[in-house]
Amino acid sequence: MTIKATNDCVWVIRDTPPEEVNGVAIPDSAKPKVHKGKIITVGKLVSDDTIKTNRIAIFNKSAGFEIQEGEIEYTILRQLDIVGTDDPVK
Amino acid sequence: MTIKATNDCVWVIRDTPPEEVNGVAIPDSAKPKVHKGKIITVGKLVSDDTIKTNRIAIFNKSAGFEIQEGEIEYTILRQLDIVGTDDPVK
Amino acid sequence: MTIKATNDCVWVIRDTPPEEVNGVAIPDSAKPKVHKGKIITVGKLVSDDTIKTNRIAIFNKSAGFEIQEGEIEYTILRQLDIVGTDDPVK
Amino acid sequence: MTIKATNDCVWVIRDTPPEEVNGVAIPDSAKPKVHKGKIITVGKLVSDDTIKTNRIAIFNKSAGFEIQEGEIEYTILRQLDIVGTDDPVK
Amino acid sequence: MTIKATNDCVWVIRDTPPEEVNGVAIPDSAKPKVHKGKIITVGKLVSDDTIKTNRIAIFNKSAGFEIQEGEIEYTILRQLDIVGTDDPVK
Amino acid sequence: MTIKATNDCVWVIRDTPPEEVNGVAIPDSAKPKVHKGKIITVGKLVSDDTIKTNRIAIFNKSAGFEIQEGEIEYTILRQLDIVGTDDPVK
Amino acid sequence: MTIKATNDCVWVIRDTPPEEVNGVAIPDSAKPKVHKGKIITVGKLVSDDTIKTNRIAIFNKSAGFEIQEGEIEYTILRQLDIVGTDDPVK
Repeated sequence: MTIKATNDCVWVIRDTPPEEVNGVAIPDSAKPKVHKGKIITVGKLVSDDTIKTNRIAIFNKSAGFEIQEGEIEYTILRQLDIVGTDDPVK
Repeated sequence: MTIKATNDCVWVIRDTPPEEVNGVAIPDSAKPKVHKGKIITVGKLVSDDTIKTNRIAIFNKSAGFEIQEGEIEYTILRQLDIVGTDDPVK
Repeated sequence: MTIKATNDCVWVIRDTPPEEVNGVAIPDSAKPKVHKGKIITVGKLVSDDTIKTNRIAIFNKSAGFEIQEGEIEYTILRQLDIVGTDDPVK
Repeated sequence: MTIKATNDCVWVIRDTPPEEVNGVAIPDSAKPKVHKGKIITVGKLVSDDTIKTNRIAIFNKSAGFEIQEGEIEYTILRQLDIVGTDDPVK
Repeated sequence: MTIKATNDCVWVIRDTPPEEVNGVAIPDSAKPKVHKGKIITVGKLVSDDTIKTNRIAIFNKSAGFEIQEGEIEYTILRQLDIVGTDDPVK
Repeated sequence: MTIKATNDCVWVIRDTPPEEVNGVAIPDSAKPKVHKGKIITVGKLVSDDTIKTNRIAIFNKSAGFEIQEGEIEYTILRQLDIVGTDDPVK
Repeated sequence: MTIKATNDCVWVIRDTPPEEVNGVAIPDSAKPKVHKGKIITVGKLVSDDTIKTNRIAIFNKSAGFEIQEGEIEYTILRQLDIVGTDDPVK
């Protein structure tokens, strides 16, 4: 990938919301925003080094804004929007 | 647990509110928020080292916001939301 | 006591308001707030070391908020809410 | 006196307003606020050392708030409320 | 070119919006703003050195303001308006 | 003079407005504020040493506030209200 | 000239707007503000040394305010109002 975050920005790809609830499919328009996503790129001014590429960021659902690049929708967060990370494997 | 707080965030699990008052059970919907909770994880930018894991944080009831992770509801606070700690054992 | 203030917080117990005026008892609901109280615990980030435990803090009456702990009502102040101290004995 | 200012606070006793204008006595309720007063105590965080005890502080009339201590009414100012000093004797 | 950015400013030339959608030409007035542009000049106070001349800046579409210089329209951004860079060649 | 400015304050005496326009006297109430004045005293926290006593300060007309001391009306400015100095003699 | 800028101020003389458009003279009242001007004097607190006397400053048209000194109208800008410089000769 050729995109690099700048400043205190963190680019994430939000986890996909659940496809169904109790066996009933959720239409795309009704899918809830999720508050997690994989960190893709981290700006140089981010001062907490636990925020890094490939970790799962946890953030307030209403934080950030979306940018479409080719096929992919990124959520652009500022460092302080991220309240935690969640990395089951490591 | 695999969750780690970031930045100046502090994740707590609020104490459970009382089940009854004067022998009368309180329905879930009427249970008051409590202003205490166990500290689960502390972000790297928290600058007061008396705020640490396993201590009981005291905070303004209206501070923070909730995130559901699996079975557990966490309250996400910022460092300055915490006005004190209360640790009877230690 | 097991409570410790954090950050720039200062916990005080407000002085009790007068019980009567001109020989007439004041009902509890009409008792005025007082602007003094004994300092119980001081957070680590308080930067003026004249603000310390057991001194009498003077503050704007409307400053701070109350937290009930067991039998005791504390007023939680931020460092800058305190405009002076008053210590007759020392 | 046992009161000590804290933080960036400066306690002053305002000069008394004039008793009469053109030979006509002014009732107490109509006496104007004055913008000068003697400095009684200075907080530790005040960073301009020309603001010190016994000097006459000059300030915007509307600055500060009053606290009654025994017989005396003090005006509590913040450092930056003071625009000058006026010390005829020294 | 004789223009130099100052302060924390970054001058970019926005990418041209698409000329047509699904084979239908878009009139000039309806062309959407794009959120990318080539960095032309960078002010001395910009503190993230990944923001530099000739890179492609990515920014919130509504950021910045336009200045016409001769034939060219520049978008003037502040450093923090830039959320990332995108440089396919390098 | 016994007055000393404190903090970032600068005391000036505004230049007198013109007495007449085109030979017609201007009544006092209609005299325009001028944006210049002689610097009388400079507070210790003023960080630009080109702002000093006896220079002519230039400032936005609406900046500052007036204080009457004896016969003299001073305009109290903050350092940043002063946009320049004008000293023909030096 | 005897005027010196102070603080973070930059004094410029705006370029004169065009006298005519398409051969039709523009009345003074309708002349547009221009966003360029020659830098006359720079305050001591300006921290970007590419902003200096005799350069052409570029700024947002609505920035700054005007002061008339003798025959000349100056536009007073703050450092951060200047988004670039344009110096064809150098």
